[in-house]
Formats: sequence, structure tokens, C-alpha cells
Amino acid sequence: MQQFQELSVQFEHYLKEHSFFPALPENLYQPCRSVVASGGKHVRPALCLMSGELFGKLSEDVFHAAAALELFHNFTLIHDDIMDHAPLRRGKPTIHSEYGVATGILAGDVMNIYAYEQLSKINTACLPKILKIFNKTAIEVCEGQQLDMDYEAEDDINLDKYLEMISLKTSVLLAASAQIGAVLGGADEEDALNCYRFGKNLGIAFQLQDDYLDAFGAKKQTGKLLGGDIISNKKTLLYVGFKELTDDKQNDLYNHYATLAPEEKVSKTIMLYKDLKIDEYAKKLIASYSDQALAYLNKIKKPAEQLSALRELAVALLNRTC
Amino acid sequence: MQQFQELSVQFEHYLKEHSFFPALPENLYQPCRSVVASGGKHVRPALCLMSGELFGKLSEDVFHAAAALELFHNFTLIHDDIMDHAPLRRGKPTIHSEYGVATGILAGDVMNIYAYEQLSKINTACLPKILKIFNKTAIEVCEGQQLDMDYEAEDDINLDKYLEMISLKTSVLLAASAQIGAVLGGADEEDALNCYRFGKNLGIAFQLQDDYLDAFGAKKQTGKLLGGDIISNKKTLLYVGFKELTDDKQNDLYNHYATLAPEEKVSKTIMLYKDLKIDEYAKKLIASYSDQALAYLNKIKKPAEQLSALRELAVALLNRTC
Repeated sequence: MQQFQELSVQFEHYLKEHSFFPALPENLYQPCRSVVASGGKHVRPALCLMSGELFGKLSEDVFHAAAALELFHNFTLIHDDIMDHAPLRRGKPTIHSEYGVATGILAGDVMNIYAYEQLSKINTACLPKILKIFNKTAIEVCEGQQLDMDYEAEDDINLDKYLEMISLKTSVLLAASAQIGAVLGGADEEDALNCYRFGKNLGIAFQLQDDYLDAFGAKKQTGKLLGGDIISNKKTLLYVGFKELTDDKQNDLYNHYATLAPEEKVSKTIMLYKDLKIDEYAKKLIASYSDQALAYLNKIKKPAEQLSALRELAVALLNRTC
Repeated sequence: MQQFQELSVQFEHYLKEHSFFPALPENLYQPCRSVVASGGKHVRPALCLMSGELFGKLSEDVFHAAAALELFHNFTLIHDDIMDHAPLRRGKPTIHSEYGVATGILAGDVMNIYAYEQLSKINTACLPKILKIFNKTAIEVCEGQQLDMDYEAEDDINLDKYLEMISLKTSVLLAASAQIGAVLGGADEEDALNCYRFGKNLGIAFQLQDDYLDAFGAKKQTGKLLGGDIISNKKTLLYVGFKELTDDKQNDLYNHYATLAPEEKVSKTIMLYKDLKIDEYAKKLIASYSDQALAYLNKIKKPAEQLSALRELAVALLNRTC
């Protein structure tokens, strides 16, 4: 079984060989081409290909599905960036910053439809099942984005609500990527479901780790801003953990720190988090989802050595330090 | 065969009986429910049901497809209104005016996915074919919207370019509605294609007539504004016709009128159009597309009396005076 890196590269070649979009109208398709070419690690398509390969050969259908997942993911990024007023993505100006909001909306719309166009190429026997998984997931991703926006205005976000939001917004698409690959590879119902659960728990662990690394990572080494989430008052796992573990006095301190200049706000908030052992709290939670992911992986009825590539992907994704 | 009005009402009942959207998240689905409930004539789903009934019984599948077409159409209206900065739709505030742009984008996105969710319920034997028609059409509708935006900034829009734009933006969805109904009703390839051509030509004629009525209709009787397109400098058939038939002197006059206050601008521009017989030019073109639509209808291998409902729909849509 090929490693994540190999399949990610293989998918990148596939993207270069297949032009999903026609030439015209230029003002619609040029932004689409630029987003698809702008890279990223292709985690979703590679995961789809990996679980496809685990159960069968890498058929054209698995590539169609992988492309659909990548196009859908890119569509959500374009629209999320408009909703979040984000100026940059992958180090480049976002589509709406470069081409205007109207083009951003329309490019996202058409990219979503092209995702379905890729799905429509899948063998008739598998199509209804894949379409069902894909639709359910796509709806959940939209619901997750709505919850994320809703929570911006709410103060009492507890851990359950937060986990529900990140599950929908981030994890279900990773889960579906693994499941769809498995179904197309010929996995039985149980194995395909365990692929889904593996992807879902991995996705949650990954997002939680992203939250953790914002305050406790080695971001300075990579030039990234430490505490970006703290500066923008984003409600991440660390904030949720703080709200769960805090007392009134610490809460007053937190509110006081929120009024400080960015650098001091970040350093004092991180110190407060450490006093409360939010870093330990977060690490335990990440480990529990990560363990859960690996437990589901081990339930798949394949010899351990065939599962090693997916296991290594999980370990690699979760062993980041920044 | 049932008349348009009956099937439009039947579809409205269907909408009331079927709640496409779950209750939560409320901030996402309440706007969706409000758009679907806000009415309209349900031309696309009714056309789908009419052509479905022409060839077979009104199966559940035809209703699934009709619902998909209506949801897709509503999704495009929500997003178009954001792109066009439109404050009102069907006499009510547009979604983004009432709930904000972010909710408008997301509600449109999820409604598009729910359109595909309806399609996914269609019988496996027909699904790939319907999905193919639907995807092609959905892509074309986006391309039409892009051309419409592109043309706002261009002066030399000739008739061919204009017809291409309205074909994509408006007509292909009517065409696909008729074709999809026919396919699901069991029509052969040729009849389904003639349904498509009927819908496409009807759609073009309908849009051209909309342009005509803006200046030459009896809008004052209904309280609508006469010459709204002239006031907003919209590039409609009348503008395109003017550009084709004008000389330099008239062109100077047109440009001068553009500087006048709205009421005078409208009345003088309409007089200029009349001098150049743009009204006649438009009427001829409308008639030619309308005749073409009926010619394709007559090619369908069904007795004339069974085609009467579709014929009457065409006549009714094109005999509006406002």
C-alpha cells in the first residue's frame, strides 16, 4: 500500500493532467483553476485513494471521487473565506480579495457543481451509495459552518457543542473521504464504516491539535504567529477548556488580559492557560480522539501491515509541532 | 393532461407536505424555508411535471426531480441577489438583506446540495442520465450569470452574445425541466430532446418578452415601474437592438437622454426606440423564438390534443402584457 505522500503526489499529477474547467468564461474559470492549482496537501483525496487501495485496485472511479472531494473542499474554502472576510489563504490573496465577492460566490458555486460532475462519472452500480454519503456530508459541512458563525456571538460554548461544530465543519469530510474510498474499493459495510469512524476521530484530533498548537506550538520557528486565535478571540478548544476549568478570579483575569495589546494579551493568556493546565487538558483530549481513531483502524479486517500506511498518516498528522 | 395551473398548485401542496430541511441549525434553515415558501409560479417544476405526465404517470421520481429543479432555481436566486445587490425579491426583502451576506451564501449553498439530495432519490436506472442533464444545465446557469456580469462592463454586446447569455442564464433550466420530466416519464431520446428544445426556445422568447415589456408593456396598470431597465442602464434586447439599428446622430441622442432625470430619460429613450422601430424588431424576434418552440413541440410523437396543455402554457406565458 502506498504512503500518503506518494498518493498525494499522484493526485497532484492527476489534477495537472485533467482540466476540470473549460476555457470560457475566463472570468469564471480562471479563479477556479487558480484555486485548484494553489496546492494544499490534498489530505482528503489522498485519504480516499489510500482507503480505496486498501480494499482494491486504484480504479478510475476512486480518482473521480477523490477529485469530487477536493473540488468540494476548495468550494467551501472559497465561500468560507468570504464569510470570514479572510484576506489570505495558503499564503496568497483569497479569491474574493483578488476578484471580488461576486466572482468568489459564483466560482465556489460552479466548483461545487463540478464536484457533482466528477461524482456522476462513477460506475452506475456504486453511484447512488456514493451520492448518498456525499450529500449527507456536504450538508453537514454547511451546518458546521453555520454553527461556527453562530458560536461567534455566543459566550457559553461548552465542550460538547464545540466538538459537534468541529465534527461537522472539519471531520465528516475526512471521514467521508475514507469511507467513499473504501466503498469504491469494495469494502464491506462494516469495514467502510470503520474507515468513516477512523477518519472522523482523526479529523477531530487534528482540529483539536490545531487549536492546541496555536498557543503551545513551535509556530515561531515557521514564522507563523503564536496565539493568533487568542488575538482574534476565536472560540477554540483552549477557550472552551478554560471556561470549563476556570473560577471567577481567573475569569476576571482573562477578561482583563483581553484588553491588553496583542503581544501581552497572548503571553498572559497563555500563562493563565498553563496555570489552569489547559495544555494538559487539551493534550489528553487529543490523545483520546487519536486513540479512538487508531482503535477503529484496527477493527478493519485487514492484516496489520496493510493498515500501516493509514496508521502512519494518522501519526504524522498528529505529531506536528507547529 | 393537466394544465399548468393545476400542476403548479399540486406542486405547491407537495412543497407543503415535504419539509426538505431539518429544524436545526435554525439560522441556516429558517431562511431556506422562507425562500421555498415565498411562492413564485413554480414554472420549472410544473413544466417538469407536465412533460412527465405527457409520457407516463406522475411518479414519485418526477416529483423528486421537480423539487430538485425548484430548489436549484431558488439557490440561484439567493446568490444572484447577493451579486446584484438586490434588496427585494417577490415583494419581500432578499435573504441577504434580511439575514446578512454570510447567511445568504450558506443558505444558497446548502439549498443547492439539497437539490442534489432530491435527485439522489431517483430510481437508480434513471439517475445517471438525470444527473448528467442536471449538472450540464447547472454549470451553464453559472456561466450565464458570469456572462451577465461581464456584459455590464462591455459596450459592444451584439445580439448573438446577448442571446447566448440569456440562453444560459434563463432558458437552459426551463429546457432541462421539460427534458428531465420527459426522460422520467419514459420518452424516447428524440422526444426528450424536442422537449428540451421546446423549453429552451420558450425560455428565450419569455426573457425577450420581459425585456420588451419593460419599455412597451402595460406595467403602469400593475403598479410596476415602466422603463426600470432603461433607468438602470441594463443591457436588454432593446439596447442591443438599438445598437444594431442606430446611426451616429441617434446614438448621440441616446447618450444625451442617459443624462436626464429618470422620468424624462425613460420617456425620451422609449420614443427613440419607437422611431427606430425597436419595438417591431423585438416583437419579430420574440415571435420567431415562440414559433420555434411550438414547432419543436409539434415534433413530439404524441397526438395534438395531448400536447395542448404545453401549447397553452407557451401561449399564456407569451401573451402577457405586463
